[in-house]
Amino acid sequence: MRDLVIIGAGPAGLSAAAYAIRKRLDVLVVSPDIGGKTNHPFTLPWIDDYQVIRAKEVVTSFKRELDYISFSHRRDSVKAVEAEDPGFAVRMTSGQSESCRALIVATGVQRVPLDVSGEREFLSRGLGYSSVSYSHLFIDRTVFLTGNGPRLLRSAFDVALHARSVLVNLEPDGEYDAGLIAKLGALKNVTLVSDGTVVEFAGREYAESVKVQHRNGATDAFEADGFFVEREPVPASLALAELVKLDPHGCIEVDLDCRTSRPGIFAAGDVTTVRQEQVLIALGDGAKAALAAYDYLLTSAR
Amino acid sequence: MRDLVIIGAGPAGLSAAAYAIRKRLDVLVVSPDIGGKTNHPFTLPWIDDYQVIRAKEVVTSFKRELDYISFSHRRDSVKAVEAEDPGFAVRMTSGQSESCRALIVATGVQRVPLDVSGEREFLSRGLGYSSVSYSHLFIDRTVFLTGNGPRLLRSAFDVALHARSVLVNLEPDGEYDAGLIAKLGALKNVTLVSDGTVVEFAGREYAESVKVQHRNGATDAFEADGFFVEREPVPASLALAELVKLDPHGCIEVDLDCRTSRPGIFAAGDVTTVRQEQVLIALGDGAKAALAAYDYLLTSAR
Repeated sequence: MRDLVIIGAGPAGLSAAAYAIRKRLDVLVVSPDIGGKTNHPFTLPWIDDYQVIRAKEVVTSFKRELDYISFSHRRDSVKAVEAEDPGFAVRMTSGQSESCRALIVATGVQRVPLDVSGEREFLSRGLGYSSVSYSHLFIDRTVFLTGNGPRLLRSAFDVALHARSVLVNLEPDGEYDAGLIAKLGALKNVTLVSDGTVVEFAGREYAESVKVQHRNGATDAFEADGFFVEREPVPASLALAELVKLDPHGCIEVDLDCRTSRPGIFAAGDVTTVRQEQVLIALGDGAKAALAAYDYLLTSAR
Repeated sequence: MRDLVIIGAGPAGLSAAAYAIRKRLDVLVVSPDIGGKTNHPFTLPWIDDYQVIRAKEVVTSFKRELDYISFSHRRDSVKAVEAEDPGFAVRMTSGQSESCRALIVATGVQRVPLDVSGEREFLSRGLGYSSVSYSHLFIDRTVFLTGNGPRLLRSAFDVALHARSVLVNLEPDGEYDAGLIAKLGALKNVTLVSDGTVVEFAGREYAESVKVQHRNGATDAFEADGFFVEREPVPASLALAELVKLDPHGCIEVDLDCRTSRPGIFAAGDVTTVRQEQVLIALGDGAKAALAAYDYLLTSAR
């Protein structure tokens, strides 16, 4: 039985792994890839890497450290986690299974794509799913945002701090706070597009325009320097739903030390109720989860 | 009246400042220095910088970013914070005062030195106040730890994971958990030194030996590769004691988003109930505090 299984190898999972290995725990990391969302950085033609690379550098340095010490990694997905006595059984899609005394969940979120033409093609080249880390790069630029809930409005306020012009597409199936819509629409640099369904992104090297279809069948095309699909992402917490407490959005509830409601299970990053989607925050919380797991293993009876 | 005053410019304060400025808040940082404890990195003759530099790189890059945008900084200490209507008044040692709508406290902790010969001289050269970030650098080495409480024992367990030999000096005025002492003493690579008072550190370029005086007047000298004074540090929360809830150790109580018990006041880093003393964790929580302050300013009435 291993000391610790870490599910996920994005920023939170990687920093958790680095800290846990330093504490000499017997660790296995299970994930379909290494790096998570940082493998798909958002790029823009006028932006040099150095302006967004900071947190990415830390992630890279963790990857390098882990490579160097040849840590245990299984390229697999987790189907289910079950409580055993003692510890937990982690069942993987491949059919394999692993027992452990403690568990860190760092599975992040699943984006909710629009599934329209050009979306996959321009992903990370002018088109992204989270404007919050990039809004300051759009000074004097035009940004198009689409979405169907509170996240869209929050992102629009944020982008409007910097951009010259913000086009906000309120998808027809969405639910919006009327007060915030009014406040947003009153901003000089914001244009609300009502009831538009995005049907296509187009461009050459980077996304350059979007086509929107209205209920009456008419279409509009908008040019912009950046495009963001700001639908609420889905926390990848399904395999844990029976074991730990989730909030109404499906986020794993954690305390200050990244403990979940079940002793022995810890969580960090975007899958938790810390919902900031910042690499730097995920790195810090991954470290917290590893230190809490270490403490749990030190003080609990074997 | 400013949007935000940030007290402290260690890792938590610097990342809070960078995030708040990105959000276009009118920010003033008040601190006696820039960089906090990262200005005094612990060095060892056999360790290359790259093994400990990761988080320091991030701090440096934040410093550079803030320099570049010439942010508002006052080289001063905060004497008292008072609630006003609206906002807060920050009174400084210099006699100056500043009003703000929101406040981030990132004042860290004060070390409790022994005040003995050689202590100041060898600070950061083989002698430090927090082994937790460095214990993995002592593989096959000898480490001497002194202290007077639970922190000493926790640090000793941590160092014992890596070091060949750990000398643990239990200062005579200390209070220790008998069970943990027994568990620690049973480790093969740990030697307990009872009732010793450290009277001197000696060495050439780096600290090399320590002299300990026993109650009966006899002295012992111990050689080691690293020396740590592991007394419980004191959270620098005094100026806030009337305004926010502190835990019994004087740490500022925060929630998951780094909110304190008082709306408009946020806190991050070692001054809070997140007690991990890790630069990476402080950086992440500084970002959280800034995003929470931004959200507070956006949603509260002016």
